[in-house]
Amino acid sequence: MNYFIGAAIGEETRVLLTLFIMLAAAKFMAELFERLRQPAVAGEIMAGILIGPSLLNLAAPTEITSILAEIGVIFLLFNVGLETRPAAIFKVGKSAAIVAVLGVVLPFGAGWLLMIAWGSTTVESLFVGTALVATSVGITARVLSAMGLLDAPTARIILGAAVIDDILGLLVLAVVSSMAAGTVNYVEILTTAALAIGFTIFIAVVAAPVVTRVAPRADRLRSGHGMFILGLILCLGLSVAAAFIGVAAIIGSFLAGMALAEASEDHPNMHRQINGVTEFLVPFFLVNIGMQLRLDVFRSSSVVVLCVLVTLVAVATKLFGCGLGAINLGIRRAAQVGMGMVPRGEVGIIVAQIGLSLAVIGPELYGVVLFMAVATTLIAPPFLKILYATEPAAQAEIGPADAGGIVASEDLCNIG
Amino acid sequence: MNYFIGAAIGEETRVLLTLFIMLAAAKFMAELFERLRQPAVAGEIMAGILIGPSLLNLAAPTEITSILAEIGVIFLLFNVGLETRPAAIFKVGKSAAIVAVLGVVLPFGAGWLLMIAWGSTTVESLFVGTALVATSVGITARVLSAMGLLDAPTARIILGAAVIDDILGLLVLAVVSSMAAGTVNYVEILTTAALAIGFTIFIAVVAAPVVTRVAPRADRLRSGHGMFILGLILCLGLSVAAAFIGVAAIIGSFLAGMALAEASEDHPNMHRQINGVTEFLVPFFLVNIGMQLRLDVFRSSSVVVLCVLVTLVAVATKLFGCGLGAINLGIRRAAQVGMGMVPRGEVGIIVAQIGLSLAVIGPELYGVVLFMAVATTLIAPPFLKILYATEPAAQAEIGPADAGGIVASEDLCNIG
Repeated sequence: MNYFIGAAIGEETRVLLTLFIMLAAAKFMAELFERLRQPAVAGEIMAGILIGPSLLNLAAPTEITSILAEIGVIFLLFNVGLETRPAAIFKVGKSAAIVAVLGVVLPFGAGWLLMIAWGSTTVESLFVGTALVATSVGITARVLSAMGLLDAPTARIILGAAVIDDILGLLVLAVVSSMAAGTVNYVEILTTAALAIGFTIFIAVVAAPVVTRVAPRADRLRSGHGMFILGLILCLGLSVAAAFIGVAAIIGSFLAGMALAEASEDHPNMHRQINGVTEFLVPFFLVNIGMQLRLDVFRSSSVVVLCVLVTLVAVATKLFGCGLGAINLGIRRAAQVGMGMVPRGEVGIIVAQIGLSLAVIGPELYGVVLFMAVATTLIAPPFLKILYATEPAAQAEIGPADAGGIVASEDLCNIG
Repeated sequence: MNYFIGAAIGEETRVLLTLFIMLAAAKFMAELFERLRQPAVAGEIMAGILIGPSLLNLAAPTEITSILAEIGVIFLLFNVGLETRPAAIFKVGKSAAIVAVLGVVLPFGAGWLLMIAWGSTTVESLFVGTALVATSVGITARVLSAMGLLDAPTARIILGAAVIDDILGLLVLAVVSSMAAGTVNYVEILTTAALAIGFTIFIAVVAAPVVTRVAPRADRLRSGHGMFILGLILCLGLSVAAAFIGVAAIIGSFLAGMALAEASEDHPNMHRQINGVTEFLVPFFLVNIGMQLRLDVFRSSSVVVLCVLVTLVAVATKLFGCGLGAINLGIRRAAQVGMGMVPRGEVGIIVAQIGLSLAVIGPELYGVVLFMAVATTLIAPPFLKILYATEPAAQAEIGPADAGGIVASEDLCNIG
């Protein structure tokens, strides 16, 4: 029916075509990378660079690709949450907090100093520092779930640290943004902090046990697929709540997954259905990151140098900062944690977009931050694969009751 | 991270909120309707009317809801295709063709005559007639799959007739649109016809057997979930191809599903993953239909009368026209076929949008057609439930090899 048609309908077909190209390119590159023994995640991001505006220009980021990407990473973290018991995170809480704090302070400070030394203004330097702060935990979670290692002890630390890291990143962004605007409203920032921390603790401590108790009733729904529907509603609902409070939507979906982890244990079908949604949408998340890269920023060699320097600082500060926080686990595991916190992905991109929209950074610095965000996302997966290569899959640790979880983990093993 | 933020980011949170409201409202109403022994489909469309601009105004159709709705119905028909063997459709080909032709001629003629009698212009009358032509098979497919009756003999006829119906509808639309534009380009229309028919036959006769033979190799993909990934790519790919050729995207995804039906038989996990994507997205399709209804069209009582008349003609002509085509099956089954072809849903809405964009119909007649599209979609499901109530679930007919299909059908039984 889309033949004759005005803008509205022809537009829909063009959007469908874009989505098809994104999906097909992602899966082709994933397969290619797997055959080269490289992580599929990196392949899918590369697919985005390839088809994006910089190279083949077959597709470009739009509102629709961004929303699908956002829903994709929301489901990715929901999936990870479903495999994660709150207790497992609480147990590593202290380590995770130290990792998160060091992984915020070092990148921020080093990024700021680098830019000052480069001759940027104070506000610009503060913004680049801020962009180096927050980890995009989706990338690491994807790599670890593909290896069946979401239960590894360092995986728990990375997940816990990513939650704390996101809240700290929110606060740094709040302070720096209001400094850029001229006045620092401490009341507002403290309110933001209180809300973010309160929300997280409320979900983890109060809501999760309630959900665990109430969720089994979902099976009684006449309209069927009760646990799956409950999962969808909790996942989207808490994501929206998190976004409104100011933390990343994925924090909400991760918490939603954790809240349902126990109740959904003996629902392998629900796990497979959620897995289907995730597998369908995650390529849009990964390709959308790749498509952000603009190679036209490399017009001058000084920009190239800056891109490399910022990326080096971004990698080194998380690797050594977060690694330092986990050094009591031994060098190898400290390196796992540090490398797991390296990808900045969509979070770095969002900070760059805010900086641009506040006119705090110009298009050139925006391009540099985007480069750093995409590059850190590409660099981490291969090293993660090597660092975790000898780690035994640790599903048994969470106990024999976790049949659903194990089925899903097997599934996840094949993901990427 | 969405706190401080300019339009781009805050917008994303608002979109997430809209999607959450649509999903939650759909599932609440589905459950309510199930408890009242009404079809869940009707409940989800009602949810759209409730939260839409006419009543609570919590959400409105946007480009994003339309795309999600489109992807939703694409996956719905893909799912139905996966349960359908090409042979089963070919077997009923002649009946389906008669049903389709009668179901095109009668609604078009009666709609046109009604509008002429009402005092509309010739072009307006032709356009309303066109809007009455094409069936939205997604609604009926959803009802039948929820009852586990996709294998009923009349279900095959309805599916086959819907494919032919869509092609005929495309041609009627082509002729009427070009008449509205002033000149009828017969070459272009014949090309459209040839492409649409050729595409459909090519997929059904040539591509499907090839896919059946090649698909098992998908399991060898290193990146995992081979059959699921192949399904996604075929589903989106053929949808896009269909849309470019001019037929509805869902014809492409239905054919893609049929092509994979045999190869995916022993892949219950793939069926569950596809089912997960479908269950997640279909509510957006149904709610988006309901949200199209604008009650503000009812400002004059003559419009109310016209809405009722057009809807009556829309129901009666498909019910009796298509029923007549299947009368050799007996009254009850003829009524099943006739009622199964009644919903106009998104196809009627698209024709109305084209009419509006070509300035062939005004906003008032646009509102009337939208009312007809939504009303026929709400009317059919309860009657379908009654007409099919005594039909035995017929999965056994397709033979013992269909384990995957049966698993998926059981799943679908609980849908809605």
